[in-house]
Amino acid sequence: MNSIDKLIHLLSRLPGLGPRSARRVALFLIKKHESLLIPLREALGEISNSIKNCEVCGNVDTISPCLICCDAKRNPNQLCVLEEVADLWAMERTSAFKGRYHVLGGRLSAIDGIGPDDLNIEKLVERVKDQDITEIILATNLTVDGETTAHYITDCLSASGVKITRIAHGVPVGGELDFLDDGTLTAALKARRQVTPLL
Amino acid sequence: MNSIDKLIHLLSRLPGLGPRSARRVALFLIKKHESLLIPLREALGEISNSIKNCEVCGNVDTISPCLICCDAKRNPNQLCVLEEVADLWAMERTSAFKGRYHVLGGRLSAIDGIGPDDLNIEKLVERVKDQDITEIILATNLTVDGETTAHYITDCLSASGVKITRIAHGVPVGGELDFLDDGTLTAALKARRQVTPLL
Repeated sequence: MNSIDKLIHLLSRLPGLGPRSARRVALFLIKKHESLLIPLREALGEISNSIKNCEVCGNVDTISPCLICCDAKRNPNQLCVLEEVADLWAMERTSAFKGRYHVLGGRLSAIDGIGPDDLNIEKLVERVKDQDITEIILATNLTVDGETTAHYITDCLSASGVKITRIAHGVPVGGELDFLDDGTLTAALKARRQVTPLL
Repeated sequence: MNSIDKLIHLLSRLPGLGPRSARRVALFLIKKHESLLIPLREALGEISNSIKNCEVCGNVDTISPCLICCDAKRNPNQLCVLEEVADLWAMERTSAFKGRYHVLGGRLSAIDGIGPDDLNIEKLVERVKDQDITEIILATNLTVDGETTAHYITDCLSASGVKITRIAHGVPVGGELDFLDDGTLTAALKARRQVTPLL
């Protein structure tokens, strides 16, 4: 296998790229040698040397504890529990949450053989015990596995007496009822809130 | 900009990847540090050091002249003229062509300001003059620019007396007439061939 085929093979393993798009990307990189291939190689080298998992929350960053865990302006009493680092990034992009995070590194899944010991749950229980945490916000996905994980964590933390909340599930902002799946609509109906008229 | 953002920014410049899929790829790379990130960095380094354009045909390879130009088993009398290296790879995958190639590096385009001097045409004329070439197969795309390029090359080579052919355009194999665009169907009709019955 020559070096071009090797590059294409590696690129085709990236999520969202197949053999065809990997070839396209490889040729693009070869064409943009100075402006893209070399910077990308350097960026990968930098990441490879500097990236680590935050020992506190499981986020990825160049320092550990990560910038979020070190940020004194963030509320240390609220912990948002997420499945993956990608979910943490999504949450951060909203700028709606000013507490701290705890990344599980996956979800409980009988099919994939992922049990509680494979996830970052033990450390979460420790954090709740040792730190002054008043609220745990469960933000695992609303899938069978995500719900199972949320239930399991609720059980683990029930003895600690901490307040446990779950993010709301319902009609997305801008969503039209007509195009929604039944499950979401059912969830939205069940979680309805009373509206108080403005006086 | 930290090293993760830098990586995401570079990845999002690759064809077919946007900011969202670039984030996904970056996280995937961080997760698969040993099995993917490091090999990819090494493959990029290898490519960066070894890749060159073939001085004869314009293909990319680790040697120049490239493997195809060096292959004594290939017919040196037939030259297939293509727009891009990607087209050459597509042609090679079919294993249907046993001659050699000439990559133009683009197509004539008034809108993009690409003239004959920006393409690898002069060297093609030289090859036809110096080497013992009997047939030029024009395999530029059937777009306005590709056709213009094919016409221009035909003009350039008309004095040399070499046989010039154009690859056929028509109904794709497995294509159904009902789903074809009018242009392709018109081209297929115009280029119809006589069928001789088997005796």
